[in-house]
Amino acid sequence: MSIDLSSPGCQLVLTFVCQNRPGIVAAASTLLFEEGFNVLEAHQYDDQESGRFFARITFNPVRDERAASVLLEAARAAFVPVAARFGMDWAMRSQAETRRVMLLVSRFDHCLADLLYRRQIGEIPMEVSAIVANYPRSTYAHHDFGDIPFHYLPVTRETKAQQEAAIWDLVQSTQTDVVVLARYMQVLSDELSTRLAGRCINIHHSFLPGFKGARPYHQAHARGVKLIGATAHYVTPDLDEGPIIEQDVERITHADKPEDLVRKGRDIERRVLARALAWHLADRVLPNGRKTVVFKD
Amino acid sequence: MSIDLSSPGCQLVLTFVCQNRPGIVAAASTLLFEEGFNVLEAHQYDDQESGRFFARITFNPVRDERAASVLLEAARAAFVPVAARFGMDWAMRSQAETRRVMLLVSRFDHCLADLLYRRQIGEIPMEVSAIVANYPRSTYAHHDFGDIPFHYLPVTRETKAQQEAAIWDLVQSTQTDVVVLARYMQVLSDELSTRLAGRCINIHHSFLPGFKGARPYHQAHARGVKLIGATAHYVTPDLDEGPIIEQDVERITHADKPEDLVRKGRDIERRVLARALAWHLADRVLPNGRKTVVFKD
Amino acid sequence: MSIDLSSPGCQLVLTFVCQNRPGIVAAASTLLFEEGFNVLEAHQYDDQESGRFFARITFNPVRDERAASVLLEAARAAFVPVAARFGMDWAMRSQAETRRVMLLVSRFDHCLADLLYRRQIGEIPMEVSAIVANYPRSTYAHHDFGDIPFHYLPVTRETKAQQEAAIWDLVQSTQTDVVVLARYMQVLSDELSTRLAGRCINIHHSFLPGFKGARPYHQAHARGVKLIGATAHYVTPDLDEGPIIEQDVERITHADKPEDLVRKGRDIERRVLARALAWHLADRVLPNGRKTVVFKD
Amino acid sequence: MSIDLSSPGCQLVLTFVCQNRPGIVAAASTLLFEEGFNVLEAHQYDDQESGRFFARITFNPVRDERAASVLLEAARAAFVPVAARFGMDWAMRSQAETRRVMLLVSRFDHCLADLLYRRQIGEIPMEVSAIVANYPRSTYAHHDFGDIPFHYLPVTRETKAQQEAAIWDLVQSTQTDVVVLARYMQVLSDELSTRLAGRCINIHHSFLPGFKGARPYHQAHARGVKLIGATAHYVTPDLDEGPIIEQDVERITHADKPEDLVRKGRDIERRVLARALAWHLADRVLPNGRKTVVFKD
Repeated sequence: MSIDLSSPGCQLVLTFVCQNRPGIVAAASTLLFEEGFNVLEAHQYDDQESGRFFARITFNPVRDERAASVLLEAARAAFVPVAARFGMDWAMRSQAETRRVMLLVSRFDHCLADLLYRRQIGEIPMEVSAIVANYPRSTYAHHDFGDIPFHYLPVTRETKAQQEAAIWDLVQSTQTDVVVLARYMQVLSDELSTRLAGRCINIHHSFLPGFKGARPYHQAHARGVKLIGATAHYVTPDLDEGPIIEQDVERITHADKPEDLVRKGRDIERRVLARALAWHLADRVLPNGRKTVVFKD
Repeated sequence: MSIDLSSPGCQLVLTFVCQNRPGIVAAASTLLFEEGFNVLEAHQYDDQESGRFFARITFNPVRDERAASVLLEAARAAFVPVAARFGMDWAMRSQAETRRVMLLVSRFDHCLADLLYRRQIGEIPMEVSAIVANYPRSTYAHHDFGDIPFHYLPVTRETKAQQEAAIWDLVQSTQTDVVVLARYMQVLSDELSTRLAGRCINIHHSFLPGFKGARPYHQAHARGVKLIGATAHYVTPDLDEGPIIEQDVERITHADKPEDLVRKGRDIERRVLARALAWHLADRVLPNGRKTVVFKD
Repeated sequence: MSIDLSSPGCQLVLTFVCQNRPGIVAAASTLLFEEGFNVLEAHQYDDQESGRFFARITFNPVRDERAASVLLEAARAAFVPVAARFGMDWAMRSQAETRRVMLLVSRFDHCLADLLYRRQIGEIPMEVSAIVANYPRSTYAHHDFGDIPFHYLPVTRETKAQQEAAIWDLVQSTQTDVVVLARYMQVLSDELSTRLAGRCINIHHSFLPGFKGARPYHQAHARGVKLIGATAHYVTPDLDEGPIIEQDVERITHADKPEDLVRKGRDIERRVLARALAWHLADRVLPNGRKTVVFKD
Repeated sequence: MSIDLSSPGCQLVLTFVCQNRPGIVAAASTLLFEEGFNVLEAHQYDDQESGRFFARITFNPVRDERAASVLLEAARAAFVPVAARFGMDWAMRSQAETRRVMLLVSRFDHCLADLLYRRQIGEIPMEVSAIVANYPRSTYAHHDFGDIPFHYLPVTRETKAQQEAAIWDLVQSTQTDVVVLARYMQVLSDELSTRLAGRCINIHHSFLPGFKGARPYHQAHARGVKLIGATAHYVTPDLDEGPIIEQDVERITHADKPEDLVRKGRDIERRVLARALAWHLADRVLPNGRKTVVFKD
């Protein structure tokens, strides 16, 4: 039986960042060609401020002789010298490979429900390694988590260090690739933030940098803004200052009470977080200092 | 010749604000009915936080016996006792009456050009009482201001008080109703802000309260946000904190440089300012403390 | 124990439509005042094309002597003569009264899942009288419907009349107020459409009137549009031509395949349908021939 | 004096389309590297439906020894064999080179005014080769066209062939690169459409494919849609069916009359047309049969 080489299962994604200098694209694309690959989609971006060069290249094999995993290993091995020559920060993955995502949640479960639904219908390709909550299982009584492990890890000021240690243990024992704070209303410590650098995504319920901190919808109501928003960003030790992945807004009016903002906000939050996570899992988000490069098209 | 009573020229607008208590709408609408008017459109809003009641009612005469100005005077006189009974802050105007607007501008003239164009084609009904700039006429060489008076009022730290006195004199001598800071890059003093309270509209080139102060597009670029915006608000002594009338945003990407934000921002600024001014002139914006009630539909 | 008169449970909503003539608002608001009510929010709109006048008034009792149901009956009885005088089509309801909604669904369950979630967290106040599907229960295996009755009513060309009769029986026996076609991929017959006139809402997965009929996302992809949308409308015998309640869009690019449009479309569909249903249940949507008046603020 | 090699004046843009097969990107980027260029930004897209491969690459010289025009000629000459090998449809241009744009207009001049303003402040880099109108110069009395030639070419059913011949003569004699129908309310003949294929952009005042043909805002009002839009597309003999470059929408309500739609539409039209033209001039739009590939970021 012949393999459909254009299927996502046969597509590989190369991403890299390095200082810009002549010859990068030529070297990378020549290597892919010589190794028997065909470029399907590519984005390259030169950040003139930092002098860094960002690339994302999707490609598939021209012939079908090798198994997907063999292909990937061969391509990775072949790319090592190119990456070394240009000092690249790089990764190469198969689009078929699903990563393991841990979902952290507090009392409000609309983002959790939304991500689980998108996973269930196959929209966001991921395995959920665990659901971790600082509220008991009964808070989510109406959810059927299937065979996803649920961990109730309550937290107080006194137990925070221990609770975070438990989270970190779970991340390691479940081989979690990505942690999502799906309206998890606890500030991670500097230590845990640093450990999860670049692979922990938070949804903040405001259009940052407006209304940082607590109760942003109440802040927005008090200020009388005409649009509210949400922001998905990587978690860093610097609270609400991590690199922004995606934002969106919706119009409100004077007649919207704080609870209306909360309601409208739920829709924004869940779609912004879902987009950010999907892009992250598709290797479309490359960190650039305090900012991100997002190759969307 | 019979008058078209449904034409905007025959429409009157009543707006009022008062403490909410039973009977307000009944009293106002009964009065209008008894005076021979027909309600065309009405908005009423009870702000449960402040206990204040806001209304905007558009109406026209049922019969055409009286001239527009007579009608208006009669309706005003008849409404006085109702307004007194409920302690209303109120106004009644003819939709046909165009107000006098002074445009203040600095080096960037895209908002100025836009407002003049909208006036010229009749989209925003207003008379421009004067254009005041802290740059010389030659900065706007390509503009034909027609018979609109242009005043060059340069300003330095030392001459600010004098310059503002000159602006205030102009406001009075030209019978200006509304002052628009159409990218006028000077902070008004507390004194002038207070004098123009409720009738001076500024366009701020950020989505407030994010990126207050100077060079907001550069701030937005540095922070790596994914949407930029603009905010039209009433000017108050508290800089960038005045009641917001309208805001809008547009999507940007990592590839947008500060100059791209400036370019995209121009489009947002001019449409946000134009909407805010048009709504203000149509008596659709009612101040509510630090916020506004905007009756849009 | 004293009742909180400002709570939604004490709020009543009056909606009416009639030919415009002087005195309508005066009569309605005077009646409400005399009956001991206080106006909280009001919208009135005069459609000059049709000459019809539309109103929605929210009000609550000034004193708390009577039970909510007694209040409502008294207000209704008092309003009868006013309604008769102006030939109004009218309704008066308590905001506390939740209506019974039947959800019809086919294979794609994202709108179903979304509406059930919004009901569960109390965002959309409704009772779900039944879920009716032309796919078996196993299609929705992952959903816990709780105590909501599920009815599998398969349909073929031959059995359509019978199946629709069964739906209609269910509507009646369950005292269903509103029927929602939550991606129910069957065209209702003229007969059933007519029976459900004004209380059956469909979500169409295109920005109507573009891409009527089947497979709209594939049509959109073939045409190369840059935005896709969804439309919630009342069902009428005239397919895809019913009065539009709400629409929204999202940006797409050349790189989006039909399956990407389907994915992006799910987000638009569910939020457009949820808004339309919420507004309908809040008596904010008044039919106006082929169109609707939606009092949003 | 040393040249700033990162300035737009030194940037070249290569665009090409060909059948996808392995080695394209490797060949193109290797050639650029060997010729002494550095890639700044690149987009590549493989359209799996048509099997065509689209690319846009921005690059600048690594060293500054040669003049810009010499560089461009050398790069073009060097690229010829690569283009031939892959059967490419291709173009290479300097970003500094401004193209000549002819603006056609009828009675409504908001798009004309907008494009002239954007050119004047340097936002859209172009030379306006001529303004052609089927209304006399006095229609635009308030506009100062500076040294841009204005041609009044009235048209009737009888004189259409002649008038179009005059337009075509002008296009040739003025060395016009791009023709913009800036609310030019005449349908071009098949002949002229064909002659201008791929370089004539129209703005249609509806969200195509909804409301094709005449008076789209009135159609939209009659249908009761909740959003209106505008569409910029390449002109083809098949009316309103040309490849879409850009679209946008704005929200309307039941209270908007046809004239309100016209007013709101002006804002949409002018920004959609400006974006489409700017992208076209920056070689960001590649035709793909009935559709377009737009490399935006």
